[in-house]
Amino acid sequence: MSKKKRPLILVTNDDGVSAPGISCLTDIMREIGDVLVVAPDKPQSGMGHAITVSQPLRLQRIHTHGNYRKYTCSGTPVDCVKLAINKIICGKPDLLVAGINHGSNSSINIIYSGTMSAAMEGAIEGIPSIGFSLLDYESDANFKPSEPYIKKIAENVLKYGLSEGVCLNVNIPKENGDKIKGVKICRQAKANWDDDYVENYDPHKRPYYWLTGVFANQDEGTDTDEWALKHNYISVVPAHFDFTDHQMISLIKKWKLNA
Amino acid sequence: MSKKKRPLILVTNDDGVSAPGISCLTDIMREIGDVLVVAPDKPQSGMGHAITVSQPLRLQRIHTHGNYRKYTCSGTPVDCVKLAINKIICGKPDLLVAGINHGSNSSINIIYSGTMSAAMEGAIEGIPSIGFSLLDYESDANFKPSEPYIKKIAENVLKYGLSEGVCLNVNIPKENGDKIKGVKICRQAKANWDDDYVENYDPHKRPYYWLTGVFANQDEGTDTDEWALKHNYISVVPAHFDFTDHQMISLIKKWKLNA
Repeated sequence: MSKKKRPLILVTNDDGVSAPGISCLTDIMREIGDVLVVAPDKPQSGMGHAITVSQPLRLQRIHTHGNYRKYTCSGTPVDCVKLAINKIICGKPDLLVAGINHGSNSSINIIYSGTMSAAMEGAIEGIPSIGFSLLDYESDANFKPSEPYIKKIAENVLKYGLSEGVCLNVNIPKENGDKIKGVKICRQAKANWDDDYVENYDPHKRPYYWLTGVFANQDEGTDTDEWALKHNYISVVPAHFDFTDHQMISLIKKWKLNA
Repeated sequence: MSKKKRPLILVTNDDGVSAPGISCLTDIMREIGDVLVVAPDKPQSGMGHAITVSQPLRLQRIHTHGNYRKYTCSGTPVDCVKLAINKIICGKPDLLVAGINHGSNSSINIIYSGTMSAAMEGAIEGIPSIGFSLLDYESDANFKPSEPYIKKIAENVLKYGLSEGVCLNVNIPKENGDKIKGVKICRQAKANWDDDYVENYDPHKRPYYWLTGVFANQDEGTDTDEWALKHNYISVVPAHFDFTDHQMISLIKKWKLNA
């Protein structure tokens, strides 16, 4: 009697291999399939879709236990995905999960996020991919309430697949007394950051600037990820990498660029 | 009699302040308006939408001549845009241009490109923004044939504006005997990179991996940027930052995620 083959699941993140969030995600995935972790050897938050082209990359195997392997990579989250596919698996995993990110990747944050860029790179490679984030920046964040939801979402993606070129951006509210109410399938809210820079002088009296800012949601839609999270739902946004604004094409065609 | 106010144009790139491409773009923009250059102090290719959050940033004024100012920044292209707005202009420029990039940012390259991420950050901030790239990686690339087109596109954007949340991804073919035929307004072609890694050992006998790859266009559409460039047209793709895949929303709603 043949045993059903367990799926191969690639796990990565942007907070680095030592972050509690990736340990939690790895444990959940080990209940579902064989797990390969390839994660940055240091925090890589805010790296967006950066890749390393001008430097060599290092890859180090740090753990093997049965069908569970763990590597660190000196590069960005997207480098981790590319190296895992090309040099470790030499093929595609059945599922790619990134996270659990310490902090939100909802709405516009998707564009700055190394975690979501890893999931997006998976989608570019044709791998069903999901990024998970918890709205809690603390290192002792409580991932427990999100675990059954993460498992269910991953199992559904393995079962039903995702459309070509699409990955999922999953954000999970922090439980503050109120329990998570469930899951909402959403669109990305229109929001931005009101940036600011803390300006100061280093010990050598040279000025420096340090990025800070306040998140500003400009979208009152009840079908957005921001609405869902505010009302204690997990938000699931299907995200793609076709940047084309099709409406604007016809407008620009009226300009006289070839005159 | 009041003189018509010249527009303020912010210029940046990802190849760094010393790249010939940004000098060419700066010269073209000085014919149109007052120019502020804020560019990375070193090459930042492939940085995608990375921002610097864990490190302080440095900003240095290196040139002032009338209504032309030039700064270097220690961060990424997106950092340059954020710092220019927050700490130099303390407001918004009338136009943001990034480039001229040494090498293509067509189709999927938009996601890895620091140049296009600078333009996208401009769009997030509500600034009419354009990224320009020439399909020539050489440092002695000939930007001359593209100059009248770049000027015309920038003038049109200043005149007509862009829809909210949209920037332009402009790619320019390298003239190989054949002249540029004109401008096509396009959608982003479906393409990817067949990645590979050169594997070798450093002088200390430790293995390293260096990213390389072959570009693979899978899109035969004649309305794509790849088609336009192949046929010696300049491609203009209007690009936005709403990643939502609206079609997939209804599909996932049928899953039993709340059961």
